[in-house]
Amino acid sequence: MKGKINAAGRWIPEKINGKPVIPYQGVGKYKPTGRKASPPVVSCSNYPKNGDKVLPSLQEALKRAGIRNGMTISTHHHFRDGDKLANRLFDTIAKMGIKNTRWYPSASFPCHAPIIKHLESGVVHHIEASLNGPLGEYCSLGKMKGQGVLRSHGGRYRAAQDGEVHIDIAVIAAPTADPFGNANGLTGKSACGLLGFALVDSQYADKVIIVTDNLIPFPCIPWQIHGNYVDYVVTIEDIGDPNKIVSGTTRITRSPARLLIAEYTARFIKESGIMKDGFSFQAGAGGIALAFVMYLKEFMKEANIKARFVRGGSTKYLVELLDEGLTDYILDGQTFDLDGIESMRENPHHVNTSPFTSYNYHGKGNFASMVDAAVLGATEIDVHFNANVVTHSDGMLLHGMGGWQDCLFSKCTILAVPSFRDRIPVIVDNVTTICGPGELIDVVVTEKGIAINPMRKDLLKALKGSSLPTKPIEDIKKDVEQICGGAPSPPKADKKHVVAAIQWVDGTMIDVVYKVL
Amino acid sequence: MKGKINAAGRWIPEKINGKPVIPYQGVGKYKPTGRKASPPVVSCSNYPKNGDKVLPSLQEALKRAGIRNGMTISTHHHFRDGDKLANRLFDTIAKMGIKNTRWYPSASFPCHAPIIKHLESGVVHHIEASLNGPLGEYCSLGKMKGQGVLRSHGGRYRAAQDGEVHIDIAVIAAPTADPFGNANGLTGKSACGLLGFALVDSQYADKVIIVTDNLIPFPCIPWQIHGNYVDYVVTIEDIGDPNKIVSGTTRITRSPARLLIAEYTARFIKESGIMKDGFSFQAGAGGIALAFVMYLKEFMKEANIKARFVRGGSTKYLVELLDEGLTDYILDGQTFDLDGIESMRENPHHVNTSPFTSYNYHGKGNFASMVDAAVLGATEIDVHFNANVVTHSDGMLLHGMGGWQDCLFSKCTILAVPSFRDRIPVIVDNVTTICGPGELIDVVVTEKGIAINPMRKDLLKALKGSSLPTKPIEDIKKDVEQICGGAPSPPKADKKHVVAAIQWVDGTMIDVVYKVL
Repeated sequence: MKGKINAAGRWIPEKINGKPVIPYQGVGKYKPTGRKASPPVVSCSNYPKNGDKVLPSLQEALKRAGIRNGMTISTHHHFRDGDKLANRLFDTIAKMGIKNTRWYPSASFPCHAPIIKHLESGVVHHIEASLNGPLGEYCSLGKMKGQGVLRSHGGRYRAAQDGEVHIDIAVIAAPTADPFGNANGLTGKSACGLLGFALVDSQYADKVIIVTDNLIPFPCIPWQIHGNYVDYVVTIEDIGDPNKIVSGTTRITRSPARLLIAEYTARFIKESGIMKDGFSFQAGAGGIALAFVMYLKEFMKEANIKARFVRGGSTKYLVELLDEGLTDYILDGQTFDLDGIESMRENPHHVNTSPFTSYNYHGKGNFASMVDAAVLGATEIDVHFNANVVTHSDGMLLHGMGGWQDCLFSKCTILAVPSFRDRIPVIVDNVTTICGPGELIDVVVTEKGIAINPMRKDLLKALKGSSLPTKPIEDIKKDVEQICGGAPSPPKADKKHVVAAIQWVDGTMIDVVYKVL
Repeated sequence: MKGKINAAGRWIPEKINGKPVIPYQGVGKYKPTGRKASPPVVSCSNYPKNGDKVLPSLQEALKRAGIRNGMTISTHHHFRDGDKLANRLFDTIAKMGIKNTRWYPSASFPCHAPIIKHLESGVVHHIEASLNGPLGEYCSLGKMKGQGVLRSHGGRYRAAQDGEVHIDIAVIAAPTADPFGNANGLTGKSACGLLGFALVDSQYADKVIIVTDNLIPFPCIPWQIHGNYVDYVVTIEDIGDPNKIVSGTTRITRSPARLLIAEYTARFIKESGIMKDGFSFQAGAGGIALAFVMYLKEFMKEANIKARFVRGGSTKYLVELLDEGLTDYILDGQTFDLDGIESMRENPHHVNTSPFTSYNYHGKGNFASMVDAAVLGATEIDVHFNANVVTHSDGMLLHGMGGWQDCLFSKCTILAVPSFRDRIPVIVDNVTTICGPGELIDVVVTEKGIAINPMRKDLLKALKGSSLPTKPIEDIKKDVEQICGGAPSPPKADKKHVVAAIQWVDGTMIDVVYKVL
């Protein structure tokens, strides 16, 4: 296998899935050329004049869309672990005798474990997406025929926009749709809030199929997905379970150590001066991030400070900020609970966004770099402030990247993490997999102390005199190693067998994942 | 000049502005190939991280956008005759010494007469757009260096989408914008309602400049124009006068003959059975169309019938329908008065649309063909039901097409016109310029009677027994010629000198306009 060392110091093969790879060159260094991808020019004369694109079945729609072996099929993940479409879709594709497809979801979840049988049988050749849980494990063990390619939310938009990934058929689960294909996630029994992850699919796929369990008369308002991009509409009885959107991460932590991390993070934002009138922040939906929002909210109320906007993934905690007048807007990329869905439906200041507006690095700017502070997690962080979100120290690929890489461009990126998990250090000498370069990570907050990236002299200065326990990241690492009995063991990996590649936001490759033995 | 006769029976030259032309082939006959146009791939690394794209002047923005001789510059016409940007823009371009530009507005109005000096001096080579008033006259007299190309609203979107017209620099007047370039027409002292005509410019132009007189902090919500498409933002003191949007056409008629036409039209829609629960219609903003809405409203109330949607150009008459619960939605392409602007801002059921959703013929369907009835005007209609909206019988090009061609695809297209104007017949043997083919025009309503296109046997049947004065179109023509003392004189035109081309919605050429002697 030929390859070279990239600007993050990681070895990158010449090819992934048989296609040439551009090694990571540093933040903002790679300059793209050429023009965006573009779907075929079509004519209204080939579509029903009365706007009724409804077909009797998903199979009929796939057939009319011209499905063939080797095609790329995309879906979205707004239902997260409650998605009911993708498994059904690939069961249908299998029944049609189609092989060697590439699945390009915006993320995959444990509920998608049944896709493994289609990977085994050759219906799906490989998956390019975040691989949460069983599919990640399957990939890690070297069982997938092709190689996984993990992209951030923005990276996924970019890849389709730039023509790097050509989507042949997009299949979009829509909680409400009309026969023309206008669709939204706001209403219907399966309401999931918004459909922003599917925007790029609707814009760039050759063929677009809307699948809904709530067909209403034209016009479906608002049209988060434009029917003018849609070829066919199919109704099924059930597209997803919004209750399972909440699964996994979106519960506030009860761990005293993690509550302390959350409090430190909120205090950091207050004491560094970031928390001021008109400021903005983004916090994920992990237990620490949710607790952080609770602490920060109290500080904001005490100081009578109002944010201009907060970024979602929205939860009831963000919705409370909006409802209590502590922010002008929520700019939301995915609703993480039912309160978020309701708020987006009812409150015009709870605004749906997409990876195009928020994250696409090959755009004329995006929202992520305008955010004053982003509070994120990580599986590992090293003393160079490089961080990992996809693999564990044992090398297993078990998590997706979401918008994590994209959010690193905030004005102050804070990784709020426990210093160890299951007696394995999170702060390490070198991360197993680099997902984000240290130069973009400004602060690491752990229960053992707060490490400010030495590049951020302004933050070091701002925190002078604070009672917050700031210290060098190396000191935290030493502390943790003492507690855990040393650094984590290196993964048992077959370095000749690359099972997945980690893309940077600009489409270059920042690292790879090896087969775990 | 070489050319050929097209499917509408009109002679079409081989080239317009030196570029090969596809003659009109019939409705739905021309099948496009290839892929859509696409702007260059860019990188966030070349845009300000803090999202602030504000530049000190329009000239600076044009300079940074790389303006050069021969470029295509676009603007929108949501201010109609109140636009203050285009003249200023071309004054600036002139001052910069740039020559031979192509102006690609979504329409031009009498307020743009000052552009004539830039046509004279060579700053503007020619205009491709609707030419209302003085610019149309200038073109008709053969004074423009290049040839005019008139496209419908949908055709303009299509031409940019298909790559037929490459927009180098789009300059978008925005009543409200933020420094990132998010913009809307809803708020600010110059609120004009929506910015739908500028959507295609934002999507397909190489460079996009937002010009606003109301800069607000990020985020400008809603973003009718996405800042992610925008390169630069410029503030000036005044972009347009919304009071002049009302200019021209948007007053209800007081003429008894025209009120009769309006009443006939409303009765036709009632008695033909089109007016039923859940129906839809579109009416323009001319005096007859406005009166028609008043009559139809009364019929709807009497019969307790509610529309699913009505299409704007919105006026206070449509807004009343919405406010009184007589329609679920207004799907609006341009606000024609201040009531329309306020309603769009305040009422979520007053929905902004764009030529992409409504009219683009090279899309996967559009809204126009779903409308049950469209009530439109014309300058001339012939006994084959062909109609003209751009020239007068003397050959002078004085009007734009707006969405007229696009709307012909409605399920029942009604031209509601006086049978003569200024003692010149409107119903003629052959229209001076064909803008729409007779096969798409279902009904002609005049004060002298109603002519149903013989192709529409269903409508003829539905009206049997009605007291409405239906009659053959030839009979109306005879009546009118008796009143006016014969058919109109043919235009005095130089048939060797084509001054403008009329495109059909699919990009083929349906007719040309000759120099008037």
